[in-house]
Formats: sequence, C-alpha cells, structure tokens
Amino acid sequence: MNVTPAEQQPLRVAVLGCGVVGTEVVTLITDQAADLAMRVGRPLELVGVAVRRLNKSRPGIDEGLLTDDADSLVRRDDVDVVVELIGGIEPARSLIITAMEHGASVVTANKALLAEDGTTLYEAAEKAGVDLYFEAAVAGAIPIVRPLRESLVGDEITSVMGIVNGTTNYILDKMDTEGSGFDETLEEAQELGYAEADPTADIEGFDAAAKAAILSSLAFHSRVSSADVYREGITEVTAGDIASAQEMGCVVKLLAICALTEPNGQGERAVSVRVHPAMIPRDHPLATVRGPYNAVFTESRSAGRLMFTGPGAGGAPTASAVLGDLVTVCRNRLRGAAGPGESSYAQRKISPIGEVITRYHLSLDVADVAGVLARIAQVFADCDVSIQTVRQQGREQDAKLVIVTHRATDAALSATVRALHELDVVNEVTSVMRVEGE
Amino acid sequence: MNVTPAEQQPLRVAVLGCGVVGTEVVTLITDQAADLAMRVGRPLELVGVAVRRLNKSRPGIDEGLLTDDADSLVRRDDVDVVVELIGGIEPARSLIITAMEHGASVVTANKALLAEDGTTLYEAAEKAGVDLYFEAAVAGAIPIVRPLRESLVGDEITSVMGIVNGTTNYILDKMDTEGSGFDETLEEAQELGYAEADPTADIEGFDAAAKAAILSSLAFHSRVSSADVYREGITEVTAGDIASAQEMGCVVKLLAICALTEPNGQGERAVSVRVHPAMIPRDHPLATVRGPYNAVFTESRSAGRLMFTGPGAGGAPTASAVLGDLVTVCRNRLRGAAGPGESSYAQRKISPIGEVITRYHLSLDVADVAGVLARIAQVFADCDVSIQTVRQQGREQDAKLVIVTHRATDAALSATVRALHELDVVNEVTSVMRVEGE
Repeated sequence: MNVTPAEQQPLRVAVLGCGVVGTEVVTLITDQAADLAMRVGRPLELVGVAVRRLNKSRPGIDEGLLTDDADSLVRRDDVDVVVELIGGIEPARSLIITAMEHGASVVTANKALLAEDGTTLYEAAEKAGVDLYFEAAVAGAIPIVRPLRESLVGDEITSVMGIVNGTTNYILDKMDTEGSGFDETLEEAQELGYAEADPTADIEGFDAAAKAAILSSLAFHSRVSSADVYREGITEVTAGDIASAQEMGCVVKLLAICALTEPNGQGERAVSVRVHPAMIPRDHPLATVRGPYNAVFTESRSAGRLMFTGPGAGGAPTASAVLGDLVTVCRNRLRGAAGPGESSYAQRKISPIGEVITRYHLSLDVADVAGVLARIAQVFADCDVSIQTVRQQGREQDAKLVIVTHRATDAALSATVRALHELDVVNEVTSVMRVEGE
Repeated sequence: MNVTPAEQQPLRVAVLGCGVVGTEVVTLITDQAADLAMRVGRPLELVGVAVRRLNKSRPGIDEGLLTDDADSLVRRDDVDVVVELIGGIEPARSLIITAMEHGASVVTANKALLAEDGTTLYEAAEKAGVDLYFEAAVAGAIPIVRPLRESLVGDEITSVMGIVNGTTNYILDKMDTEGSGFDETLEEAQELGYAEADPTADIEGFDAAAKAAILSSLAFHSRVSSADVYREGITEVTAGDIASAQEMGCVVKLLAICALTEPNGQGERAVSVRVHPAMIPRDHPLATVRGPYNAVFTESRSAGRLMFTGPGAGGAPTASAVLGDLVTVCRNRLRGAAGPGESSYAQRKISPIGEVITRYHLSLDVADVAGVLARIAQVFADCDVSIQTVRQQGREQDAKLVIVTHRATDAALSATVRALHELDVVNEVTSVMRVEGE
C-alpha cells in the first residue's frame, strides 16, 4: 500500500516575523498545502509564528499560531525549519543560531545580517549539520543565489553587476521619465509605498551594499562583508545629472558592481565591490530595467554573459523565493542531507576603491574668462586623467563645463577633483558620476 | 591536522562523448582542477572519456583516457559520476541506465532523450539512489532547469515562454535585419557554424520541442514528452512575413510556449505546449534577444514575471552548465544524498492545439474584384473569428490582403483557413502566423 504524503509525519515549520513577507509566506504555506506536500514528499505543518505585538489584527492568520515568545519557539526540539523574516542584526542572529543549535534548518531573507556576519551563520549551520538558505535575501523573486552557489559553481565568474534595489530604481526611473528632482520623487515614492518612511537603507545604498557583499562572496568564493563595499547612495543625484546623462544617450542607475581585478604579479585576483549611481548607455541591458524591477548581469569564463530579471521586492515575490528554499530545505531533510555551505576557500583580498578603473562624467561651474578650459585641461593632464569630451554650456556668470573622461583610476580622478577645487577659475564641481557598461 | 581536498580520495568522473561540448568539459575539469576540488571538497579524477573513433586527433585531451568501449566504462563500479554528452536516444539511454545501475550519478545535456523518455531515466535514478542532473539540456548556460526544479518549486508557475534554439533565432534575426530569405540565410548560418550540415532538428523545431517538453514537465509537475508538443519549424517563414511583422511593429521569433490552461469545470488545468514561429511586439522582452542568444520568460503566481537570458548553445556555455551540475552532484555524493527527482504528481492532461487561444496574422492573395473583402469578412464571421485590422496591398492580379485577428481558438482559425481555401476569390492563403506576447 502506498502511503500518500498527507498520511505521513509532517515537517514542522516555524516563522519568525509576520510583516508583509511573513504574512504572505504563512498564507502560501496554508493555501498551497496540498501542492507543497506533494513537492516535498511530506506535508508541512506550521507550528508557530512569532510576532512582536500579539494584539495586532492579522486577517487570514490562524491566531492560535501566534506567539510573542520567539525565543521559546526556536528552542523547541520538534521544529524542522525556521523561516526568519524579522530582519536586522539582533535578535535575528541569536534566534537563527539558537534554532540551528536545536536542530532546525533555516531559511532567511535577512540580507543585512548575512552581509554583516554571514560567517557566524554558516559556521553554526555547519556545526549543527543543518541548512542555511537565503534566496530571498538578494533581488526578491529572481533566482540569483542558487545560480551563483550551484549553477555557475563549475565556472569562473569574473563579474556580477546589478540593479538590486527597487526603491532607488523606481526613483531614478521617475526622475528620468518625468524630469523631476530627487526630493519630490522620493516623497511621491513614499506615498505610493515604493519607499519606506525611513528610506535611509535604500537611498543611501546600504541595502544594495549588503546584497553586493552577498553576491561577491558567492561569486568569488571569499568572505566579503558590507564593510568591504564602497558605497554611495542616490541622494546627491540631481535633475541636472539625469539630463546630462540623457544628452549622452545614457540613463542613471544605482549599480552594485562586483568584479575580480586583473591578476597582480603573483597571479592573484582581488575582489572589487562597490555600489554607486552611474550613467550607463540606454542600449545596455540594465538600462531597460524599469521601476521597481531588479536585474543581475553575470560574466563568467565559460558561460559568458547571463542576465536575470524580475520583481526585486514586495511580499509575494519575496515569499516565492522563501517557499522555494523551504521546499528545498525540507527535501534535503527527508534525504538526510544538507545543501551547500560557505565557500570561502579563495580568500581573496578586497581591492580599494582607488584602484577601480572606469570613466567619469563631471559638471563644473566655472568663471567665464579666457583660458579657463586650458587651465582645467592641464589639471586633468597633471593627474593623468585623459579627457574624452568637453561641452561648454551657458555664458558669463553661469558658464558650465561638462567633461567626460577616458578610463582612469578612481584615485586619479579624486586627485583631479581635489585639484579642481583649488583652481580659482572653478566656482564649484557640481557633480561627479561614473560611466559604466561600455 | 586538516586534510586538504587534494589529499583525499578523489571522486571519479567518466565522460561519454568528446565532441565540442565534451572536449570543453574534459579541458575544464583538467584546467580548473584545484578550484573544483575546493568547491566540491574533494579532487575530481577523470577515469575515462568514451569516443566513437580512437584514432582521431584530440589536442589537449590525455590519450590515455580515451576508450571506444563506453559500455565497459559505465560498468566500472569505481565511477562516481558519468557525464553523458553523446546525445540522441541510443546508445545514450542504455549507457545512462547501466551507469546508474552500477552506482554512478549522471549529468547529461541530452534534451532529445529526456524529452522522449525522461521517466525511464528518473526511475532508474530513483531505484539506484543516484542523481540525474541536466541543466545543460535546455538553453545552454542559462540556469533554467535548477530555477524551475528548486527556486520556483514553492510557487505556482502558470507559463514558461522562451527562445530556446539559437540556430533559428540567428536565422530569423538575420532575416529581420538584412531582409534576406530563409534559404540563403540558412546557408550563411551553416557556413558560419551557427547551423549544422543537417539542420533539420533546429529548423523544423524538434530541438525546441524537446526543450519545451522538459520545461513543461518541470514547471507543471507532470509528464510531458516531445510527442505532446505541437510543433512547427521556421522553414515556411518568408521575407514577406518578416516585412509584414515589421509593418506591425513586430519581429518573428521561434517560440516555445508552455502554459497551464484556464481551469475547466472541475477546476483542473491542463498543459498546453507548442513550438512555432510567432510575431511578437518589438518592445516585448523576448524581442530584444538577438543572434544565437536564448531567453526564457516565466510567469508565476507569487514571483510574477522573471526572465533569464544568455548564450543558448556552444561548447563553453554548455560546458559551464555541465560543470555546475557536476560539482552539485559530487557535493551531494559526499553528503550521501541525492538531489530532486521527478515531480509528476500533478498528472495534468495535455490540451490539444485546437484549444489554444491567440491572435493570428494572415496574408491572402485575392482576386481584385468588387465585394472581395465582404465575402472574406463573412468567412471569418461564420467561423467566429473577429478581425482586428485589414490592410489591402497592390491592385489587379497582385491584390493582397493582410488580416490580423482578435483572439480566437486555433480550431476556429483552422476552420477559417479551410473555408478561405474554398472561396473562389481567394487565390492563395500565403501565410498564417500567430501573434503572441501582448
């Protein structure tokens, strides 16, 4: 006689956090119970949902599952999988580690924690012989963690470049299509729910930097933490920058760029990882990524260029990634095995931002006197930065120079900007932006 | 004392087939030995490469590994993983099954075999407790098998649409940009190595149909074989069709379309799977997929729309997918576990092509006499196909009608075409093409 999954001992799942994503995950586990049971090979049973406030109304969630004692939930020895959706460093880290110590595998969407202290989580998982899966931590529903950890694991990945923050992409896209300024667009995004009340993590690039750290560590088999990521947000991007980009046939995007450097004398390649706004040509595949969408572009020795696109955030897309991990972790558990652990054997160094080589777009307010361009050009030449194009705009008090350079190191460009500040004919360096993707 | 992977008992790998992909796989296993050992946790050892002709020169391949006795190679009990790159049904199937019976896990790129008889392979793997991985069978280097089998396994996928054959995409792209005809473009593609000497499998859609069967079975948790796929190749696509598409703001692509039908009275959803040329709007994400590139577009309940793009064929990209599977299978082996098996619990029916609902573009040669349009429009109305636009071209003997319909079933459209053939004012129905992606 065949035993159907529904008749077997269920796998027990606890969920920590019941915000937008948590609510969606709990709902899907309930709604799709029959399909999930067939896909896993056993039914899943929700044993508890830890929340901060018990008295909040949560339509569609079985009240009997709610608890405000997350610590007791993760100490239960009969829980097979803990899904952590609280976010932030503590108490999430302690709860995850306690859950693993009690034998549970963990699925998490916690990019900040993974980027700050992923090693601690990996080590706890390894020690307990349980799984740590986190597809939802980067780029929402887009499968990118699993492709890097498994599909491309036999290849040599040389770069991963992406738009991994939906809020900033929505804002920059709006500024591009509507010609509006940063502040008003942010306000609009907040009203529409595309930006949070405190938008710092998004607009200052912290969220993207955490994701860049995770992507780099997976792609380059090395430990990379948020602190290793060079980071600039989009708060300084002006309507003028967007217009300048348009004139160049470009669009401004907040990019996460993870790359291996060229080999040094010993043949060693370091990891260069940065998040900043950049101009990219409108015919670049990443330029077509609109609104809150995300995209990740990988380059590797054998596979060449791959691109992954989809919704980068939101309750349902993030829940899809969480449920994919949940099924995988449950399958692993039934087979008595664990998925891939940390791969950091390459132990690559982090390359400083000063060594990054790219192109730059500068806007300068200058005095409109004879010989200005010659003096400015001399500064660039002295700093070893070669100018590709110069465009002069306006006249008299309002004279403005727009300069695009050839490829130069970030250090050389920074030295150039410092020297320009000291030049009496330069009133102000109004903006400096990198030009990527060519 | 730590034991480094290099000091441990290696995992033994046999490769069947040493064509373009096989050569690349063997080379990468050798070249990347140190990295692969660290990623797997053990070194890999190539124990044999089965070839058809021993006396052929194979630069870079260790001659001592070559054998023309594939059968003995797969019967060795000390082989951990067999990589099958021979292709076709036999002897590939027998060799894979024998390898599994002798305890080896299998990595294969054999789309034809998986689509014709995947169940036999899954059953053999299940029985032997070994792995069957086949990322390279669909869309070359693009991770799509693993995302469907694992990343999206907690979601409800409703459709998978893709450009999964690089040869036909190259030909159609060339016809689009150069206005050339099918025969001359095929010849050029053959000269450049983008099409094989016998191009039948590609241009008649057999290759894409096999991939569509595999994608459908994974996405919809049901058995779908090549025989279930409605298939039309691109040999009938004319320069005129391409020009017509351009006039509509469309481009012609060979699409693989896998979808769940709307629920019937019992709430059951069937699988509809077809491969045929179609016009899609130029602003559709699949329209931007150029030359030999592939792309797969998925829609699912929670994740929404995802797109995966990359090189769809070629030795190196396919080898990247094979090596990703090889590392995964080796890791599974070390952990004493197997990856996901067949998931066909949903047992969905196959929906016949006649029930597919889409739009159509028709070109007719008609007699230039009064009342032609009225008589033709009546035929469409009688068959319950609603016309969206009609364009009349030419005059006198050469009069031509281009008709685009609203959405209608394939059965209704076929009835319309049959009735048009019988109409004395219709000299010829010169082309019928579906319009998708709107």
